[in-house]
Amino acid sequence: MPDIARLVRDIAEEMRGAEERGKVATYIPPLALVDPGHFGLCVVTADGEVHAAGDSEEPFSIQSVSKVFALTQALGKVGDTLWRRVGREPSGTPFNSIVQLEREQGVPRNPFINAGALVVADVNLAGHQPRVAIGELLRFVRYLADDETITVDEVVARAEQATGFRNVALANYMKAFGNITHAPELTLGVYFHQCAIAMSCRQLAMAGRFLMHGGLYEPGGPRVVSAQRARRINALMLTCGHYDASGDFAFRVGLPGKSGVGGGILAVAPGKAAIAVWSPGLNDAGNSMLGTFALERLAEATGWSVFAP
Amino acid sequence: MPDIARLVRDIAEEMRGAEERGKVATYIPPLALVDPGHFGLCVVTADGEVHAAGDSEEPFSIQSVSKVFALTQALGKVGDTLWRRVGREPSGTPFNSIVQLEREQGVPRNPFINAGALVVADVNLAGHQPRVAIGELLRFVRYLADDETITVDEVVARAEQATGFRNVALANYMKAFGNITHAPELTLGVYFHQCAIAMSCRQLAMAGRFLMHGGLYEPGGPRVVSAQRARRINALMLTCGHYDASGDFAFRVGLPGKSGVGGGILAVAPGKAAIAVWSPGLNDAGNSMLGTFALERLAEATGWSVFAP
Amino acid sequence: MPDIARLVRDIAEEMRGAEERGKVATYIPPLALVDPGHFGLCVVTADGEVHAAGDSEEPFSIQSVSKVFALTQALGKVGDTLWRRVGREPSGTPFNSIVQLEREQGVPRNPFINAGALVVADVNLAGHQPRVAIGELLRFVRYLADDETITVDEVVARAEQATGFRNVALANYMKAFGNITHAPELTLGVYFHQCAIAMSCRQLAMAGRFLMHGGLYEPGGPRVVSAQRARRINALMLTCGHYDASGDFAFRVGLPGKSGVGGGILAVAPGKAAIAVWSPGLNDAGNSMLGTFALERLAEATGWSVFAP
Amino acid sequence: MPDIARLVRDIAEEMRGAEERGKVATYIPPLALVDPGHFGLCVVTADGEVHAAGDSEEPFSIQSVSKVFALTQALGKVGDTLWRRVGREPSGTPFNSIVQLEREQGVPRNPFINAGALVVADVNLAGHQPRVAIGELLRFVRYLADDETITVDEVVARAEQATGFRNVALANYMKAFGNITHAPELTLGVYFHQCAIAMSCRQLAMAGRFLMHGGLYEPGGPRVVSAQRARRINALMLTCGHYDASGDFAFRVGLPGKSGVGGGILAVAPGKAAIAVWSPGLNDAGNSMLGTFALERLAEATGWSVFAP
Repeated sequence: MPDIARLVRDIAEEMRGAEERGKVATYIPPLALVDPGHFGLCVVTADGEVHAAGDSEEPFSIQSVSKVFALTQALGKVGDTLWRRVGREPSGTPFNSIVQLEREQGVPRNPFINAGALVVADVNLAGHQPRVAIGELLRFVRYLADDETITVDEVVARAEQATGFRNVALANYMKAFGNITHAPELTLGVYFHQCAIAMSCRQLAMAGRFLMHGGLYEPGGPRVVSAQRARRINALMLTCGHYDASGDFAFRVGLPGKSGVGGGILAVAPGKAAIAVWSPGLNDAGNSMLGTFALERLAEATGWSVFAP
Repeated sequence: MPDIARLVRDIAEEMRGAEERGKVATYIPPLALVDPGHFGLCVVTADGEVHAAGDSEEPFSIQSVSKVFALTQALGKVGDTLWRRVGREPSGTPFNSIVQLEREQGVPRNPFINAGALVVADVNLAGHQPRVAIGELLRFVRYLADDETITVDEVVARAEQATGFRNVALANYMKAFGNITHAPELTLGVYFHQCAIAMSCRQLAMAGRFLMHGGLYEPGGPRVVSAQRARRINALMLTCGHYDASGDFAFRVGLPGKSGVGGGILAVAPGKAAIAVWSPGLNDAGNSMLGTFALERLAEATGWSVFAP
Repeated sequence: MPDIARLVRDIAEEMRGAEERGKVATYIPPLALVDPGHFGLCVVTADGEVHAAGDSEEPFSIQSVSKVFALTQALGKVGDTLWRRVGREPSGTPFNSIVQLEREQGVPRNPFINAGALVVADVNLAGHQPRVAIGELLRFVRYLADDETITVDEVVARAEQATGFRNVALANYMKAFGNITHAPELTLGVYFHQCAIAMSCRQLAMAGRFLMHGGLYEPGGPRVVSAQRARRINALMLTCGHYDASGDFAFRVGLPGKSGVGGGILAVAPGKAAIAVWSPGLNDAGNSMLGTFALERLAEATGWSVFAP
Repeated sequence: MPDIARLVRDIAEEMRGAEERGKVATYIPPLALVDPGHFGLCVVTADGEVHAAGDSEEPFSIQSVSKVFALTQALGKVGDTLWRRVGREPSGTPFNSIVQLEREQGVPRNPFINAGALVVADVNLAGHQPRVAIGELLRFVRYLADDETITVDEVVARAEQATGFRNVALANYMKAFGNITHAPELTLGVYFHQCAIAMSCRQLAMAGRFLMHGGLYEPGGPRVVSAQRARRINALMLTCGHYDASGDFAFRVGLPGKSGVGGGILAVAPGKAAIAVWSPGLNDAGNSMLGTFALERLAEATGWSVFAP
């Protein structure tokens, strides 16, 4: 086993100097303003040690990484009945595709594409006001990360709302099939705010620990989800966590991971580490370019791939 | 760790009595004649112990499980240049879909759908006669399984050839895009014979050992493929090995696996076991119904899921 | 040439007794309440004679038939620049399909599918309030029909608005591609009201005269559109006027026609007649079942097919 | 009515000088060798007069125009039962698309896309040898054109056979669905030879007369098909005759027409004229660029559009 602390520093150093950094997402205006020069990395190992480097303390918009926490929340509410409303298969099409919804009668392929995350948000809304559902999710994430300072970036949330026509289309389309139970604008309210949660790499890696520990908050700590559910969330992250590049991420990195267009990725090495990386520039598939490189480096050096002996 | 020998016997016993056994594939006539009452299971653990139960010595048509060995063979021939001709993403459509090929200009999504396996067969053909390529693959599989009795079932091979119009369509369609380099009938000849290889669960589990051992034939033995390649083949099996039910298999079983319409599944628990199961009845997704159940039972009882700590 | 008056009466008589009448559309609640026993037919011939039978004076919801008038209005506003925003090809998919929009980047296939009609409504809105655009369309239709009593059924309009999630999805989806220029809810307001225009067969046939007369209001009368534009609107009706049954309608009836889910069809025999038929029950393709039969009978008996010598 | 003879000469003159001529099809090698400078036009009017200009006597490969004659032949053999095996709707996708076949279980959308024409060829084969079916079609075309010199270009036929992998794919794909009844290579033999029929504009226009005359060979002559069948073939040509540009052709020209990648188009003005045009360069939709322009000019000048009064 290499010296993790040193490895984390080396990777951050290497990524700081990278010239090719991908393209910052532009469709949500505040995201377009983020400096592509950022890079942060944080690794929390199984024994609780935290190794961080680069801009690991700077909050960024976690965007679709929030889908992991929202899914965990929804499974806590409705259990496996969730799977009547959303599938568990990779999508085979870009992340905001509406084609698949038409073919499959309003049932999204998995909870990590936008349509599936809207169904999850609809479950979490549960007849309340959007701010109630968002407050509950925020409390859950703060608890997981052990950090009460995590909050929603309202500027980003409003920008999502003002420009998210495609998500409005998805929600209304599923409503037409009866797979959104609230008024679409309420479900969308939950979704837009959840995507606008801002977290640092440190906070995100901390919040991912329960997926490393088989569902426990920490070794010997309280149970967040059952061991089976933790495995299953990891499985979904591996097969569906990087949109239409999930296969490639599994091939190259070999870890369950979930990316967001803010440039963050949460990755899990079960029994070994929870990892968060952030670099705003995206590759062609819409995932953090340097973040993916960094995780590939880290997994290669540590042998943490779930596919290794 | 439970007593594996006993667990294997218990599972075989349970499956022997199962009433709901799925439907035997009928599109290849000789397969339709197989008794759905069969069930075989064989587990080879990391220390080389072999635990088998049920019809574990009876050869069956491995069909698409052969795609794992053919892929390994092709990577040995052309290395990562293979990925210019075939992708690494789950398909999101049924296993013999031609839609995806049209959208992606003749490049199959991954090497485990039929179209991708045809490209792999085309690579393995390499300008020779089909029987040369098949002979080479057979020698490779015999070596991996340490068993010279493995052979091609010629009755099945001929039946594939007589009824495989959809595969003929796929090969010609990719030929039109220039992604089949030989005369389509030659490439198809390799493919049809490779699918007709007959193996028992014991032979199949033995042949899968190199994927458990990080690419080594056995601990301390010769290297079959690099550690990285073994990880990557496992990753492809996990994300793409069960057609459009790959996500569900990862969710429920949590192991890299490759199924075939003959009812066989090869699964790998890296560092722990190579597993082969056979039951001819298929579920709606075209994978062995009892085979999947058996692997779910086994993975749950042993904790071998790659997603567990 | 047969006696048109008698033929119209005979057809209405025959249709009155038909047992198989199709199914009334149910997705807009007020439409579901319409008695499927209705049948109306009105033929205005080139010399201005009006032959009507059955419930030809009873107003019904013209729904998608309104797309013909809205298209004419939009072409008057922006001319052939309209075709940068909407295509002229049959869709090959059901009328409310969103798949095609994804493949073609937000440009609908033709102005007679819902997505295309939303673009047309967006053109007609032209920066005004929805009620202004609707008022203008209503005045145009009243002028064409020479009947000031034509109006919008507000109950239907409100029901469309309350249940039209799929149209909301389409409008927002195209907005995401930049092909809707107003706030989607305003464009949708125009569209929902336009569909709710209520007309009788007599009014509808009268309003279709300009398409029979090569663009003239009536022989020797003022010009509504150029001769070329009248031909082109007829061409679009023939190739795209019956959703995914347009080819079958051309095959069986041989006349340009536009149907609506209210059970109405406007058909044009250039130089010979403008025809409106109404029967609320729809066939599997979403077009009036008896209306289609009636037009087939009429075209056969009169020889009015555009494909006949 | 303008002077047709002069109009034909004027159009041929204008087209001779056109600089932008489209691109000659290259996927069949002998077609790629054809000089793009060719232009031929022939109009046979209802009274039997023949007006020709340019290279109107030079034979060219009629390719998909042959589908009109093969369809007529197949309808003569099996009547309306043909429509159980092939649809009558525009395809909404490129001419050699296989996507639609997958969605609709091996039933092609219409007889003028390649898949549909293969079904038609399968009907015409009728258990005989390919050369019998081709001989029969050739005799039919010679009869229609009143010209015994029409023949199959064997060089083109062989080239089709050597390069037509996509058609081989289509035939095998439909065979897998049971919608090709013969060995696919036999049906393909008929199809490849039928496409290789060589005709001049004069021969082609003459052969199209029965569609102008409501099914009669000539006014007062023997009946080739019923009046209804002639109308219906015209309808199919209008809605499906130009692949995914059929709507645009109807919009611009307004006549039933069928194009081929050899650069020929047969168009019909019912009761007025049968028209053949040839210019080898194709537009983006795969139809003759100058041929389409010429027909647009001719239809505009003569008022022959079926959509005009």
